[in-house]
Amino acid sequence: MDTPEKSMSAKGSYVTAAEYTRDTNYIQTRITLDGADGYPVEAGRYRLVVARACPWAHRSTIVRRLLGLEDAISIGVCGPTHDARSWTFDLDDGGVDPVLGIPRLQDAYFVRTPNYARGITVPAIVDVPSGAVVTNDFPQITLDFSTQWKQFHRSGAPDLYPEALREEMERVNKRVFTEVNNGVYRCGFAGSQEAYEVAYDRLFTALDWLEERLRGQRYLMGDSITEADVRLFTTLVRFDAVYHGHFKCNRNKLTEMPVLWAYARDLFQTPGFGDTVNFEEIKAHYYIVHEDLNPTQIVPKGPDAAGWQSAHGREALGGSPFGKGSAPTRAVDA
Amino acid sequence: MDTPEKSMSAKGSYVTAAEYTRDTNYIQTRITLDGADGYPVEAGRYRLVVARACPWAHRSTIVRRLLGLEDAISIGVCGPTHDARSWTFDLDDGGVDPVLGIPRLQDAYFVRTPNYARGITVPAIVDVPSGAVVTNDFPQITLDFSTQWKQFHRSGAPDLYPEALREEMERVNKRVFTEVNNGVYRCGFAGSQEAYEVAYDRLFTALDWLEERLRGQRYLMGDSITEADVRLFTTLVRFDAVYHGHFKCNRNKLTEMPVLWAYARDLFQTPGFGDTVNFEEIKAHYYIVHEDLNPTQIVPKGPDAAGWQSAHGREALGGSPFGKGSAPTRAVDA
Repeated sequence: MDTPEKSMSAKGSYVTAAEYTRDTNYIQTRITLDGADGYPVEAGRYRLVVARACPWAHRSTIVRRLLGLEDAISIGVCGPTHDARSWTFDLDDGGVDPVLGIPRLQDAYFVRTPNYARGITVPAIVDVPSGAVVTNDFPQITLDFSTQWKQFHRSGAPDLYPEALREEMERVNKRVFTEVNNGVYRCGFAGSQEAYEVAYDRLFTALDWLEERLRGQRYLMGDSITEADVRLFTTLVRFDAVYHGHFKCNRNKLTEMPVLWAYARDLFQTPGFGDTVNFEEIKAHYYIVHEDLNPTQIVPKGPDAAGWQSAHGREALGGSPFGKGSAPTRAVDA
Repeated sequence: MDTPEKSMSAKGSYVTAAEYTRDTNYIQTRITLDGADGYPVEAGRYRLVVARACPWAHRSTIVRRLLGLEDAISIGVCGPTHDARSWTFDLDDGGVDPVLGIPRLQDAYFVRTPNYARGITVPAIVDVPSGAVVTNDFPQITLDFSTQWKQFHRSGAPDLYPEALREEMERVNKRVFTEVNNGVYRCGFAGSQEAYEVAYDRLFTALDWLEERLRGQRYLMGDSITEADVRLFTTLVRFDAVYHGHFKCNRNKLTEMPVLWAYARDLFQTPGFGDTVNFEEIKAHYYIVHEDLNPTQIVPKGPDAAGWQSAHGREALGGSPFGKGSAPTRAVDA
């Protein structure tokens, strides 16, 4: 399973022995208020490059929208499929990003580091003047949106990273990352029956834990949405459409876990979440790019997504999604 | 998609253009009361060869058990996977069928027709004295169990093929065969995105029709089990375990169609149905043999099959599964 595509490409991941291991070495340069890494916070200077298909990039589109950073940080959107070398701007006129002027995200990585050898991943933040990727360190990108870009937050923006909750959130995020966000990939990219079965058990053990945790509280950290919910949502929203069949995460569908399914619908129906989901691009990405898992590249027509809009009843648990703030109201721009 | 495996092998099927087409040319010799084709009904003379994985063979194991033909017709069971040439007796000691003395079902086909060029399919009925396959014409095999082998039916055997219902049953069986039994294969083996989507719509149109037909009546033809129910059951019982993910029949799981799911559980809990189901062999067959669809050959651990034993509530519709007869009581022998 250690194909060139997996080890070197846009997926930024590789396989060692039978268990799938994600390459988590990202470009860790940060954009900060003090500009310590050479990239200070500055409205209009940076471009967030994403793909609607990608769960890791999806975090950043949700947080940017929840916080109202659209005017401060522009966005470039790659198509759902990519070639062996790079995500591409094939959704744009002429296949070129209108701001960066490049056809492949790889080009911006190469400005930063000629012959950059790791995965060409999204999300990436590009410094528009120089055309160089500043960072692709997705777990840090969204936290910095919360903490470094505060002066550009919209009025009514929620506090997605409250200081009082950070220690516990760190623990929750860690378990969600290793067991759920990455856990579905560990199932799908397992190199042996045994590695798959171990991965499957780990994943569903974690989902059962979440089902219990969310039974009596509306959000992962309590009464309001935080970064932790964003991180869990991007996997849950892809679960039945992709992970259940394509990655064989099939003990049950999300729709068969009543608490998690209601929680996921509650988020989906909250501005910033469902309005940034594109199921067609999500399905196209996984089923077409992973030719080693799906050689026919045929994309499933199901599942019926209508259920995402059904009543969830989670209001009964109380809480307030945006805390003392309010929902974003502007139109979605990506 | 027109691989040698598909066109020549044990699957007895091939692909023309983008739409999957099943090779329905079987050996049509019949075992009859009058022995018109040279093979008269005779207890102990014939061996039914099946694989628990195969839905077409599964019909014959259910009907044999419902009618109590175990003492009249012995059974040989091939393993769930097969090589490019043939189903094999790999579950038996030494990999050889204890009655026929052969390792591959192909051997019995070759006794009948040297270099037999079509698919080596199950079910097949072998004439034990000569070692030759008599027939592999599965739709006729079960009907002949009902009509030609009557003298050997157990006391209390149901009438699975009532004369008064045959005309309507023919219409139902035809639609169930083309749209459902074979419809799932048309999805899974589609040679293009377009052919797949057409197949998917045909399949779910038929399942919606069945959902309506069975809403107010307990069985497909009315108050009692018939051949028509056997034929539908063998696809339904494989639906969530295989067809939903592996063949991309994923508008919804069977468990998400309340009427069909209750109907399927009602049958599953009826002696002769669920007691002939082996989910492990079913999943192993599809996911390991269809390497062109599942190159990793990893077999999904899910779905959780516990739900098959849950209450179905269909008794409220009245009816009597075995009509004037009664359920089989002897132990399952295959």
